[in-house]
Order: sequence, then C-alpha cells, then structure tokens
Amino acid sequence: MKHFLCDNFLLSNKTAETLYHDYAVKMPIFDYHCHVDPQEIAEDRAYDNIAQLWLGGDHYKWRIMRANGVSEEYVTGNADDYDRFMKFAEVLPRSIGNPIYHWTHLELKRYFDCDLILNPENAHKIWEICNEKLRKGLTVRKIIKASNVTAIGTTDDPDDSLEWHIKMKNDSSWDVNVIPTFRPDRLLNSDRPIDEIKAHLIERMDYFNEHGCCIADHGLSHISTPDNELLLFCANEYAKRSWVMQLHFNVHRDVNSRMFNKIGANTGFDCISTQDNNALAGLLNNIENLPKTILYSLNPADNMFLATLAGCFPNMQFGAAWWFNDTKAGMIEQLTAYANAGVLGNFIGMLTDSRSFLSYTRHEYFRRILCNLLGTWVENGEYPADTETLGEVVRDICYNNAFKYFQSP
Amino acid sequence: MKHFLCDNFLLSNKTAETLYHDYAVKMPIFDYHCHVDPQEIAEDRAYDNIAQLWLGGDHYKWRIMRANGVSEEYVTGNADDYDRFMKFAEVLPRSIGNPIYHWTHLELKRYFDCDLILNPENAHKIWEICNEKLRKGLTVRKIIKASNVTAIGTTDDPDDSLEWHIKMKNDSSWDVNVIPTFRPDRLLNSDRPIDEIKAHLIERMDYFNEHGCCIADHGLSHISTPDNELLLFCANEYAKRSWVMQLHFNVHRDVNSRMFNKIGANTGFDCISTQDNNALAGLLNNIENLPKTILYSLNPADNMFLATLAGCFPNMQFGAAWWFNDTKAGMIEQLTAYANAGVLGNFIGMLTDSRSFLSYTRHEYFRRILCNLLGTWVENGEYPADTETLGEVVRDICYNNAFKYFQSP
Amino acid sequence: MKHFLCDNFLLSNKTAETLYHDYAVKMPIFDYHCHVDPQEIAEDRAYDNIAQLWLGGDHYKWRIMRANGVSEEYVTGNADDYDRFMKFAEVLPRSIGNPIYHWTHLELKRYFDCDLILNPENAHKIWEICNEKLRKGLTVRKIIKASNVTAIGTTDDPDDSLEWHIKMKNDSSWDVNVIPTFRPDRLLNSDRPIDEIKAHLIERMDYFNEHGCCIADHGLSHISTPDNELLLFCANEYAKRSWVMQLHFNVHRDVNSRMFNKIGANTGFDCISTQDNNALAGLLNNIENLPKTILYSLNPADNMFLATLAGCFPNMQFGAAWWFNDTKAGMIEQLTAYANAGVLGNFIGMLTDSRSFLSYTRHEYFRRILCNLLGTWVENGEYPADTETLGEVVRDICYNNAFKYFQSP
Repeated sequence: MKHFLCDNFLLSNKTAETLYHDYAVKMPIFDYHCHVDPQEIAEDRAYDNIAQLWLGGDHYKWRIMRANGVSEEYVTGNADDYDRFMKFAEVLPRSIGNPIYHWTHLELKRYFDCDLILNPENAHKIWEICNEKLRKGLTVRKIIKASNVTAIGTTDDPDDSLEWHIKMKNDSSWDVNVIPTFRPDRLLNSDRPIDEIKAHLIERMDYFNEHGCCIADHGLSHISTPDNELLLFCANEYAKRSWVMQLHFNVHRDVNSRMFNKIGANTGFDCISTQDNNALAGLLNNIENLPKTILYSLNPADNMFLATLAGCFPNMQFGAAWWFNDTKAGMIEQLTAYANAGVLGNFIGMLTDSRSFLSYTRHEYFRRILCNLLGTWVENGEYPADTETLGEVVRDICYNNAFKYFQSP
Repeated sequence: MKHFLCDNFLLSNKTAETLYHDYAVKMPIFDYHCHVDPQEIAEDRAYDNIAQLWLGGDHYKWRIMRANGVSEEYVTGNADDYDRFMKFAEVLPRSIGNPIYHWTHLELKRYFDCDLILNPENAHKIWEICNEKLRKGLTVRKIIKASNVTAIGTTDDPDDSLEWHIKMKNDSSWDVNVIPTFRPDRLLNSDRPIDEIKAHLIERMDYFNEHGCCIADHGLSHISTPDNELLLFCANEYAKRSWVMQLHFNVHRDVNSRMFNKIGANTGFDCISTQDNNALAGLLNNIENLPKTILYSLNPADNMFLATLAGCFPNMQFGAAWWFNDTKAGMIEQLTAYANAGVLGNFIGMLTDSRSFLSYTRHEYFRRILCNLLGTWVENGEYPADTETLGEVVRDICYNNAFKYFQSP
Repeated sequence: MKHFLCDNFLLSNKTAETLYHDYAVKMPIFDYHCHVDPQEIAEDRAYDNIAQLWLGGDHYKWRIMRANGVSEEYVTGNADDYDRFMKFAEVLPRSIGNPIYHWTHLELKRYFDCDLILNPENAHKIWEICNEKLRKGLTVRKIIKASNVTAIGTTDDPDDSLEWHIKMKNDSSWDVNVIPTFRPDRLLNSDRPIDEIKAHLIERMDYFNEHGCCIADHGLSHISTPDNELLLFCANEYAKRSWVMQLHFNVHRDVNSRMFNKIGANTGFDCISTQDNNALAGLLNNIENLPKTILYSLNPADNMFLATLAGCFPNMQFGAAWWFNDTKAGMIEQLTAYANAGVLGNFIGMLTDSRSFLSYTRHEYFRRILCNLLGTWVENGEYPADTETLGEVVRDICYNNAFKYFQSP
C-alpha cells in the first residue's frame, strides 16, 4: 500500500516517477487563465486565517458543505470563520474521491508544511498551524513565488481600468507577468445598440492591448447559432491583435434561482449544459480571420468532439479539463481524447481557473497525472522508453507550449 | 489468476477485502425501488422450476436470448419451461462481460448453493439442483429473509387498492417493511380534464400516505419542457407529505412497434433516449416546494450532468446506475461521477429495480464494486488508510443513508 | 517494463496471451468495409516509396502533420515525397497516445521487417529499408495475401461499372473475394425527381447484386427524421436482396470550408456531430422489411445508446469503434458497451475502413485489445478459465461471425 500523498503520489511506475521528478517538477508555471483578484497581488494581501483563504470565495467547497447539510450561515453567511472551518473539516473525510480532498491536503503540505489529515479531530490543530504560517508572512506574493509561477492571466471586464496590472508593471520588486484577459460577457449581453457596443469593444481592446493583454475569454451558456455577430466581430478583432481567444461553454449558470436571488452569481449553483455542437463548428468556420483559439466545454461528453473539431482549424487547442471535470478522472479522459485525436506533445496544458492563490498545486496534480499516463504507456510497451523525447514532451506540456502559444504573435 | 466468483470476487486488494467482508456484508438491504409484485410476497409464492423464476418476466434475459437468435416461442412464447431454460443456458457462455453472467452465477451460489457454471453441459444438472431447492421450500419470503432485506419499495399505480401491502402490515409473521410507491404515469398521461386528474391525484396520495407510502416515482421518456404542470403539481404535493420523488428519464420505450403490438410493453424493446438537459434543470427550479428528489437518467452520457445538477438543490440525489447501466462499468462510472462532483459518503446507494426476487445479489455486486473502488484509492495513496472512517462511509452508502433518506421526514 | 511492440504487445496477462497467440492470430481477415481502390488490387499496384503508401490519401496522418504546424505544401501539396516523409517523422514521436503511432510501427514491423522507431534520426534509414522492400515487389496483392485476407468490401458509387471487381472475379490467379458495396450517398442527395432516383437505385442494385454485392452503406451527417423516404426505400430493397445495410452517422464533414474550397472532401477537415437519437430509432422502426443492419456513430457518447438500440431489432449489430474512435480507448469502450448490453460472442468484429493497404494491422491491433479484455476478465475471476469457450468466442469475433453475417442470406 502506498502512503497517502507520498512523494510518488499518483505515480504508479518508475517511468512516471522519472518523468515527474526529473522533468515536470522543474518547470515553472504559466497560469494563463484564472479568476484571482489582481489587486490582491499588487497589494500582496495577507490573511487572518485559513478559512478566509479556503472558504472566502471557493464555491467548489461551498457545494460539498451544502451536500453535507451545512446551513447557508456557515457556507456564505455570517458564521464565525473558525466555525465555518470546522464545518468544512466535517464534510471533507466523507468527500472521498472528490478532487477537493486532494487539493486541500496538497495545499496543507506545500504551503503550510503540514502533513496532518484534515478531519474533525485534527481540525483545531491544523487551524492553528495554518494561521501561524499566515501570521508569519505567508502572503499572496509569497505563495506565488513559492509556486514558481512566471505568468498569471487574470479575467477582467473591458471597462476595468487595469490599474493594478499597471501598478505591477511599474513595480520593480515584482517580476511575475500578470496579464489582463479581455472578458466582454457583460458588454456583449448589454442592450446598447450593436454599433455602440462594437465601438466600445474596439476602444477597450486597444486599451487592454496597450497594457499587455494577449488573451480574451468568453463564457457562454450554450452556443446555439453559427451566426453570433458580436462573437464573430470580437474574434476577428482578436486575430488582428494576435490575441488568443478562449471559449468556455456548456454551463447552465444559476440553476437554482431562489439561491441566486439571495446570494447572487458564482456561489455554487451551476451545472453542466448541452448544446448544438454543429453550431459551434459552424461558428468557428464563420470567423473570417480566426485567432488562436482554445475550446473548453463543461460537458465531458464533448471530449472527443472538441478533440476532433480542434484538428479542423490551425492553431486551435482543445483546452484542459475544466471546472467540474478538473478531477483525476476528468483529466485522464481529456488527455486521452487529446492524444487519441491529435498531437499530445503540442498540448498547452494546465491552468488553475481558480479564485484562490493556493490552487497552484493543481498544476502539480495535473503534472503527476500526465506523467503517470505517459509512464504507464511506456511501461506497458505502448511507447519506447525514450526518456529524452518523453522528457521534452513533458516539459513542453507543462510550460513551453503555453509560453509559446501566448507569447508569440 | 483469481477463481471465478471466489470469496474476493471483484475485490482486488486488501483494503477492498476488509471493507467488504468486515463492513459491507454485514449491512441489511433497504431496497427502496423495485418492480416485484407485493401479492407474491403476501402469499409467499412458490415456484415450480428455475425457469419460472428466471425467465418469467425478466426482459434483460429475453434480450440476450433474442440476440442469440432464439425464436420468440422460447422467449415469451409457449415453449416448455425446460426448453426455454436450455436456450438460456446456450447463450449465457457467449454473454461474457454482460452483468447477467455475474447475476446468474451469484444467484446460483447464494440461493441454490450451486457452484456450477451454467452452460449447455451443466444445464440439466443445474435445472435439477434448483428445482429441488424450490420444491423444498425456497419461497419468496425465504429468499427475502435470506437476503437480509428490511424494506422493499414496490411500484404501484395510484388506483391500486394496496390490499397486499395492507395484509402484510397486519401479518404479525412478516416483519419486512413493504412500502408502496406512488407511480402516477398512467394517470398523468390520461386525457381526463386536468383539474379532475389533480383531484384524483390528491385523493390517492392521501390514501397511499395513510398506508405507509413515502416514495413517488415518475417514468418519463425525455423531459422537454421546464413547465410540465402536472409534474410540478405532483412534486409540490409530495413535498407536503415529506415523500421522496424519483424521476426516471431518457428511456425510449417500445422502440420496435411490431413487437409491441404482438407482446406489449416491458418485454425488452426499449433503448436509451436523449433529452434537453436544460429543461430538466429548469423544471426542478420551477418546483416551488421541492421534495427530496432522486434523478436517474438512462443515458450514461448524463452522469456528470446529473452529478452537478443534484448539487444545485438541497436533498437531491444522483441515483444509482440504472437498468442498462447497472453493470460493473456503469456503476464505476456513476460512483466516480458522484464522488468527483459531490460527497460520496452521502450517497443513498443501490436498489434492485428488478422484477425478480433473486436480484438481491445485485446489492452484493454493487457493494463489492464500491468497496473495491474505495480500497483501490486507499492502496494507491489517494486516501488515508483510515479504516474507521472508510467503514462508516461503506455502511452509510450500503444502508444507513437510504434508511435516513426515506424514513426521516 | 515491457519492450515497445513486443510479441505480447497489449497483452497484459497469460490468458490474454493464450487467446491471442493460440486463437486470434490464426484467423483470416474478413475486411467487410474499407475505402481501398479495387483498380489497385486488380492491377496489383506497386509503389515507388513509403511516402506514397503512407501519405498518399491518409487524412489521419495529414491531421497530425497540420497539428504540428506543417504547411499544406508537405501535407497535400507538391512537396517532394522524401521531404513529406521527413515532416511526418518529425511529428510522430510527439503523437504519443495516438493510434497512428502504433499503426505506423506495426506496419513497419509486419510488412517491412523493420523494428526501428520512426523519428527524425531513424527516418532516412527507414525510408531506405521500406523503399527497398517496395522495389523488391511488395505490391498490393502481396500485402493482402501476407495479411491472410479472404474478403474485402470496397465502397462504390451506384454508377460504378464494377469493371475491376469483374476482372478480379475472372482472374484465376486471384482468390480474394473483393465485394462491391453499394454506397448511394451521391445519388440520394441529387436533385433528380424522386421516382427517377428510385428507378435508378433499383436498376443499379440489381446490377451490383449480379456482381456479388451483398453490402450497402450510407454516410449520413446526422439523422434528423424517422421519415427519410429514400433511406426507407433503400432499406426495404436491401432486405429483398438479403444485403447487409451499414449506417455511418454523426459526422460533420468539411467543417473548414476554406480548406474544402482549396483541396476538397476527405482531406482531414471533419469532426464529430450530434443528432436526435430518437429519430434514428424511429427510422429503423419505420423500415417495413428490415435488412441486417450495422450502426456506426462517430460520437462515442452514443455507445450505450447504440448497444441498447441494436438489441431492439433482430440481426442488428452495433458496429466496431469507427474512425476517430478506432483507438485503444475507443475500442475498449465499444467492446465494453457491446458486452454490457448484448452478447459479445456474436459481435461481427473489426474492419479497417481504411484507404491504405497497410491497414490490415488494425485487425491485429483490435484482436490484441479484444483478447486482453477477455483475458483480464478471466484473470480477475469475472469469467471462468474455460479456454475452449473463450477460444471459440475469439475465433467468432475475429472472423466467423462476419463471415456468416455477410455470406448467409
């Protein structure tokens, strides 16, 4: 039996171990898509306690608390931080098989040097260990640097002033590239006249471009027509600026309208949607000047569809397993579909998509799964034991491919 | 090599063995949804031969017989029981990988003390062994008690008198709780005026409620609108009575209309359907007073959708792998999706959904698969070797969660 | 660690090895569906070099070259054969997990006695080894006979004269049965009056029938109605002639219209589609006189749907994993779904669906995966170690079932 979360966590054979420890672990992180607040990086936010960091805005954790019958007071309400933390500690041991179980313990280990299992018995001790570390200066910037992150793609409204991005650019003490991402969902759904929206989009794209933006992102419920005028307009404009366009779709947001009315969006009441996949394919074909594009569907039944669709256009990527699929099983399925239908060595790899600064361990989680998949193929005689080529593939997927994809025009 | 159907059948490691033999096997069965006939329990039906028991109403077996070219005479026709049994014995060895292969041999072992492999050579001997046991008093009640069943949820038409349920309640020699389930499909599809249907529903719900009913069930082909007036009406009424509502959907029934015209419904001519999943989510949201609800889709491509949808509402369960998905692969996928998106320790677990009294071995089959999944995670270092917590999770999923879900208002 | 592509490639246990080496490998190949050119068999085409054979019309390989950024000149353009081959050699090592990696090396080993790994370093040497073999007489007929192929189902337009099929029938030096397949897609989509189309169909079916045709095939984007008059007409006519009808659907063809306009169809710009599965079920039910029918969906999310649908009609087969799903993972999923919902021993098995004469190794690939799946079940105690029955199942799936399905009226 393997010890929980040991050095060879998720690595089931020698080749996997070699690929992870000799190659993957050494690569920096290019976290090209996430939802952290740039102000918190610019101001190097400190935290009072681990509940703030873990339960502040993490709707993944809120969902499992609710699934354990925890009342909303402890989830998003006004309960005391310590009490909220204890409620989370109660549900965690029952959440066997949920990625939160692994993420939580990886975060305890990597950022708090804590090997304890989080359960009701250990919870108080862990509370004290973590808070001690936080008091002693484990701030946002410390976490980022400790994680060997070189670039962070935030997610920003077109009307954002980008003041924090600008401040960081001018801050000689800070060398991590915090890249704004142009996410015009709100603007595209507004009821302003279409020409006005277009003019505003152009103006803001130019502004974002001046301040280092090279990524756009669209969050779509489900794509139902190949003729979305504003999306086509945006795509062509992105291509002019050599930006990468991300499309996130098949989300049914705010399914529970009672809870939405009470506590608003992004609170853990979303689920998977389905769409007319032929419309998505048609939409991409209708883009006259196609930018580099990354496709993410929340519906895992789309994996092979996206893998085959991406192969129909140049420079298009089937994106990493997203949100509810950001699990061990989900990643293996995404990687397998990518490999089966394309060139896995050219995959741009992982991103956190997170609201939490502790989530960089998700890159570790992904890299272990990737190395284990490759290593298993080698050990089974399905690929030659050519460590040099395999190592290059690992380094490329972990970092180099993303770096090139986002940085080269 | 492991011996076929040995004590550690489906258990691939020590932790799995411990969880199964020390925890799972000891729990009783709360079979909250099935299609057995309450009259046969009340009257303690006896059988003349194994063909009656196995081939009487089991459309799973009928399908594989037809897939082997067996003529309808031997499937649902008037052929001699012995000859029908021999035809079944011919197809079984070719049905490698089909759950019927496992179910059949588990049933032989558990109820007939018979370790023989069912094939044409052994068929006659097995016919005699089984019939001897049946003659010697292996009746319906014996089977149920031997299986350690404490509750059975039958499936009943609203106009059913529940006479057999009532008789069993008053039968001091019988302590298994046979719970009627309110299944109003026929009534909801009738062409009576809607107000009349509603009044009738209320009256019958009250009647069912008086006689211990706490479960309703709807069989739907595919859900196409979030505004199904009668379904919304029923749901609100169930909530008033603290009933659990089951929704079974994505079934395309009676696909082969020639055969339907000849031999009717539930004869093995159904297949998987697809639906507008956004409509289902909208429908659930439109229920003002949502009862405890269990979602079952016949389409396995819906697994992650259901797992994420159930997390958007309180007390909602993503139900066990159903019908065509009630296989080793299907259960692993359902459990993995449940675990990935929710709190597996809170899963209400298995049900037989069967028309046969021998199907309680399906709980054994499920429990072995569950324990193996958990055990494998532990052995791979993905969860701590905390037998106490794991044992509690196993006991809860096997029995306690269902007991609480159905019995507590 | 297992050596890459060793004798026990993909066989992970003793039972799997026995089933493959003692049973599967000895069976001939009945390749009932492919896209090779009958003229090239009739004339016993020879090749100048391996690039002609590998890159001549193989859009699978073209896709991975494009995914590696190779310009169209080297893909379908006028670049020198050697240079095109070198570009393919560059992408191959990065295509870990893609079936092309395995196919390529199996082809090198089986047809060119070459154990080298194809990568940029070895490419020149491999180029010379292969071309030497080709010069020394490795022609189309040699490849077919070396592969132990006894029947080939080509894919032919109704207006084809079948001259090459006829020549082969009359060629006493050639004993492989090259069977024309009636594929009326072009005719069914023409704008001629419907009665004229029907009359023409009948005339050509009769002509094809005279020349040994016993298979029809339809390529459909997605089936949207149960009332496709011409398809229903064809199906009834096929049944009259005891033909097998193949339906290939859920393909979104020529997704990239810019590339279609430049280089036409079947060039690697297709992807998976989705459809109304209820319409397909309704269509099959609407066929008055249903012929033997094989269902293939390009969408792997349809696997269980097809497995359960096929069980609703007599003599209907859920076809082998197709095109983008013709991978190790895809085949395991198709076989598992087939086994879970039907009688795996009656599966008609593999076909190449290929445009290349080297693709018969795909049967080897399939057989290894099949034997490994069965062997693993046995070793895990999920099926008795009954080598005789298992061997019969293997032989039937590899050859006998297809032979009977296509040859018996």
